[in-house]
Amino acid sequence: MPSRLDNLRSTLSEQRLDALFVSQAINRRYLSGFTGSAGYLIVTHKDAILATDFRYVQQAKTQAPDFQIIQIGGQLNSWFTKLISDLGVKSLGFEGDDVALTTYQQIVKAARKTSPKSRPRLISTEGIVERLRAVKETEEVESIKKAAAIADAAEDYASTQLKPGMTEKELAWILEKFLREEGSQNLPFPIIVASGPNSALPHAQPTDRPIQEGEPVVVDLGARVNGYCSDITRTICYGKPGDDLSRIYRIVLEAQASAMNSICVGMKGEESDQLARDIIEKTGYGNSFGHSLGHGVGLDEHEYPRLGPNSTDVMEPNMVFTVEPGIYIEGWGGVRIEDMVLLEEKGPRPLTNAKKANL
Amino acid sequence: MPSRLDNLRSTLSEQRLDALFVSQAINRRYLSGFTGSAGYLIVTHKDAILATDFRYVQQAKTQAPDFQIIQIGGQLNSWFTKLISDLGVKSLGFEGDDVALTTYQQIVKAARKTSPKSRPRLISTEGIVERLRAVKETEEVESIKKAAAIADAAEDYASTQLKPGMTEKELAWILEKFLREEGSQNLPFPIIVASGPNSALPHAQPTDRPIQEGEPVVVDLGARVNGYCSDITRTICYGKPGDDLSRIYRIVLEAQASAMNSICVGMKGEESDQLARDIIEKTGYGNSFGHSLGHGVGLDEHEYPRLGPNSTDVMEPNMVFTVEPGIYIEGWGGVRIEDMVLLEEKGPRPLTNAKKANL
Repeated sequence: MPSRLDNLRSTLSEQRLDALFVSQAINRRYLSGFTGSAGYLIVTHKDAILATDFRYVQQAKTQAPDFQIIQIGGQLNSWFTKLISDLGVKSLGFEGDDVALTTYQQIVKAARKTSPKSRPRLISTEGIVERLRAVKETEEVESIKKAAAIADAAEDYASTQLKPGMTEKELAWILEKFLREEGSQNLPFPIIVASGPNSALPHAQPTDRPIQEGEPVVVDLGARVNGYCSDITRTICYGKPGDDLSRIYRIVLEAQASAMNSICVGMKGEESDQLARDIIEKTGYGNSFGHSLGHGVGLDEHEYPRLGPNSTDVMEPNMVFTVEPGIYIEGWGGVRIEDMVLLEEKGPRPLTNAKKANL
Repeated sequence: MPSRLDNLRSTLSEQRLDALFVSQAINRRYLSGFTGSAGYLIVTHKDAILATDFRYVQQAKTQAPDFQIIQIGGQLNSWFTKLISDLGVKSLGFEGDDVALTTYQQIVKAARKTSPKSRPRLISTEGIVERLRAVKETEEVESIKKAAAIADAAEDYASTQLKPGMTEKELAWILEKFLREEGSQNLPFPIIVASGPNSALPHAQPTDRPIQEGEPVVVDLGARVNGYCSDITRTICYGKPGDDLSRIYRIVLEAQASAMNSICVGMKGEESDQLARDIIEKTGYGNSFGHSLGHGVGLDEHEYPRLGPNSTDVMEPNMVFTVEPGIYIEGWGGVRIEDMVLLEEKGPRPLTNAKKANL
């Protein structure tokens, strides 16, 4: 991934860092292509090193041709001292929002063992690679589009399969098989099928509850293609929806449309969120929309940027994120409608296009 | 989970701690029963508090009846200061091996805002809850046995489904459907089906490679029941195995039997590992067994204890762990045989019992 390394090195220059120590698993994959579950990267302005254990050395050599692979084992400080002595960097960033305190203490200890001349200053960084990941390359968008198309098809399939008496778990498993057989890799997150009162839980797990006529059924699912995730939610209903459901559904639909129409490049995450929140607050349901409007999607199903209260993340061209307002009422149920968009100069372009129910 | 809280409180007393701040997700679930993806526990000698956000408050109330649920939002320091002031603890442990450096810094900052009288000392701990989790209760063993039985059935099914020309991905998907339809929750880890040279990668991902006659096929899979995982590996072969495969297979089989026969209560992880390693080293394949002999299994698919070089973890009654030696040869392939055992006073009792191939 030479261009990703170039981008990282530009950021390192801006932040006056000689090197970054990458511990976060998805950042490791993004920069190197290596998909194993263990390892670290050290990227300097000249070198790119991937340190991993016996189980993954062969795989790393194949997947990360731009990196020099070194085999490590045991505690971090046993190999780290030699490596950073050899690299001769004066300032070494690490991912303070990922590294556990005890790992950080090992890094400090290992750094102290180097000779004073080759000892780097350790600098805690946050979100360096996450910010690079947020702006998608053309190839990444292509993978996300494929994952979105599979998820769309699954949502459309859900409407045809929904029958009263079917349990949430049964529908979830029908949809999981569908997603996988249509080409999804391991799902990015467990499918949510939440019916009736269960749909008041924004992150419900499917239960053995039989789905009934007239009630909301929230179906939140995603697919994964080439590692890239999709994420979509539809709220559906078998038969004639109750009056409350129709009313609440239309509010959520309007809130989503308002955000989709107005989010633009340069807007902050909290402003984007407020677009949908304004509509919901006007109807008196403000306290029932307790989560954020959306989040970035890529190799991780939840990534930078965050569209929510107090988010100063700035929307940039080629970011991919969700727009997913919801209203949740304990005892009654909930409605959420979620689409993924690609932010273009002229505004958000929807990446998910599954049919929306007419409730 | 009152008895788990009692056990935790005993450990806190031994370590002279007034309270533990639990950030690690599986520890949170183990102690409270709450399965949501976000939240913190604070357990004192009197109180048990679960702090989580809007999305999960309802679910937490249902799942964690022994805990007082408080709704939080935003940065950690906004609610943490008040909470620890109210609790009046003098020493507060946190999970240093889980908490990210920047979260730790927030904890420190929040603690500084309390009045000097109610300001706790912050103490970094490691593995407190993980050590409790390692020793299984009867009910936990029952769930693991169910998960093991489903995994056994899937391994036996694999032998009947294996056909030359079938790809690794195809077989993996057949097995995943089988596991799920036999009652497994979301799989604990992606199924490994690695054939021929691919089986030299201990953590291979299934590919589109068509499986051929006479070569090793490593099938590593698990099921999940009530959150508890199983983990088993069989190496199988379609048709007549090559001479190398038969020879290497028998070495691994003997190494596994040797460990299964001799691991006992009181033994260290490194001694357990050496039992199998001795056999493999004698045959000259020592360098080809590059991973550890095994690991604990429970709510996490890899947990305490570790059976491997330099592991001082001590085997205790009612621990559940894997015994999984392997030999991996680049370009040729690999063999791994893995079973889960429950350690009883008289030795390990196998929890997985799928047929082993006669190669």
